[in-house]
Amino acid sequence: MSRSVVLLSGGMDSATVLAIAAAEGEQCFALSFDYGQRHNAELTAAQRIAEASGVAEHRVINIDIAQLGGSALTDLTIDVPDSASEGIPVTYVPARNTIFLAYALAYAEVVNAEAIYTGINAVDYSGYPDCRPEYLAAFQAMANLATKRCVEGEPIQVRSPLINMSKRQIVERGLELGVDFGSTVSCYSAAIDGSACGVCDACRLRRAGFVAAGIIDPTRYG
Amino acid sequence: MSRSVVLLSGGMDSATVLAIAAAEGEQCFALSFDYGQRHNAELTAAQRIAEASGVAEHRVINIDIAQLGGSALTDLTIDVPDSASEGIPVTYVPARNTIFLAYALAYAEVVNAEAIYTGINAVDYSGYPDCRPEYLAAFQAMANLATKRCVEGEPIQVRSPLINMSKRQIVERGLELGVDFGSTVSCYSAAIDGSACGVCDACRLRRAGFVAAGIIDPTRYG
Repeated sequence: MSRSVVLLSGGMDSATVLAIAAAEGEQCFALSFDYGQRHNAELTAAQRIAEASGVAEHRVINIDIAQLGGSALTDLTIDVPDSASEGIPVTYVPARNTIFLAYALAYAEVVNAEAIYTGINAVDYSGYPDCRPEYLAAFQAMANLATKRCVEGEPIQVRSPLINMSKRQIVERGLELGVDFGSTVSCYSAAIDGSACGVCDACRLRRAGFVAAGIIDPTRYG
Repeated sequence: MSRSVVLLSGGMDSATVLAIAAAEGEQCFALSFDYGQRHNAELTAAQRIAEASGVAEHRVINIDIAQLGGSALTDLTIDVPDSASEGIPVTYVPARNTIFLAYALAYAEVVNAEAIYTGINAVDYSGYPDCRPEYLAAFQAMANLATKRCVEGEPIQVRSPLINMSKRQIVERGLELGVDFGSTVSCYSAAIDGSACGVCDACRLRRAGFVAAGIIDPTRYG
């Protein structure tokens, strides 16, 4: 049985990716990050999803990036916007996916995993530079030179099965695989009980996905 | 005055790189990591070196990679070898430089730095895959696509001025720039007071550098 690390934020995309990896027969090692988010509702969601999915292991790493600031997601003095903005929004966290993928690479090497699954998506997304296919290709090229495992001939593949899917397609694929979207948390400003604001970028993209799919949105709005 | 992030471990290489960056007129933002090392003598050294150098800021980030294990440097159940080994040694920490550089990229973006200085060296080194020039080139290519700053046309350059230098050349360059090598700690198993074992890979490379340069080795051996 081949092993994979799955980046699991607790949102609808990563929950769908975990279901995809499991459906592809992977033994899954889930990886979440405590990075000084505004709330921990998404970490609670990640734990629930990992348990329900029967992963081999679920690790939560404290990555201490809030001290660097520079984002509405980690700096309480910057408000999360309630409407779409031009360009790259203030919810962008500097180098976040590079940090996440670097840890995933380390974890994959330690547990002898041959792949890393991410929920990175470049269609209905917030315009972050580190969500684009060209970024992922460059990360893969770097990863192939970075680790002992890769240098010795056993590559670690970064797989982003949602990269070209719309939110609607993600909803549909998740439902096919039995994902319980009601237990996922996507909102940038979720309350401690996991209820969503309904107006941030993440909420708007998520809501539009359910509407487009013609599915009743199970999200709890606060 | 242009700004740079300098990765500062507290060893002789990074102390020399900090001196080089300062000599090149950079305003330096030093970055160290608490990653569950066997000891904290090198972090104490890093603090001392940063203060003596008059950096603009010195951040220590707790990166919580010891929980992943997989290296003699982070797992107390694996002994640090006292002689050179074939291939990549057990002191290799999975994806370490990728994690370090990912944080440096985030920090550089937050403080508007145009460069990251590293002490990565591919001559007198332990054979780690993430110390090779081709790895650094691939990281740079990825970094150019990863951040808001780079995408908007202000690249963050990764500079590794020691990459092709021998340990002897590093000793000589450091002395020219006034580096106090007595306050640096390179040993993989340094005692809490900073004294070195004298037999690990890092000690052997360091000692040979001083011998080759014809300089009295200021290292305190335990």
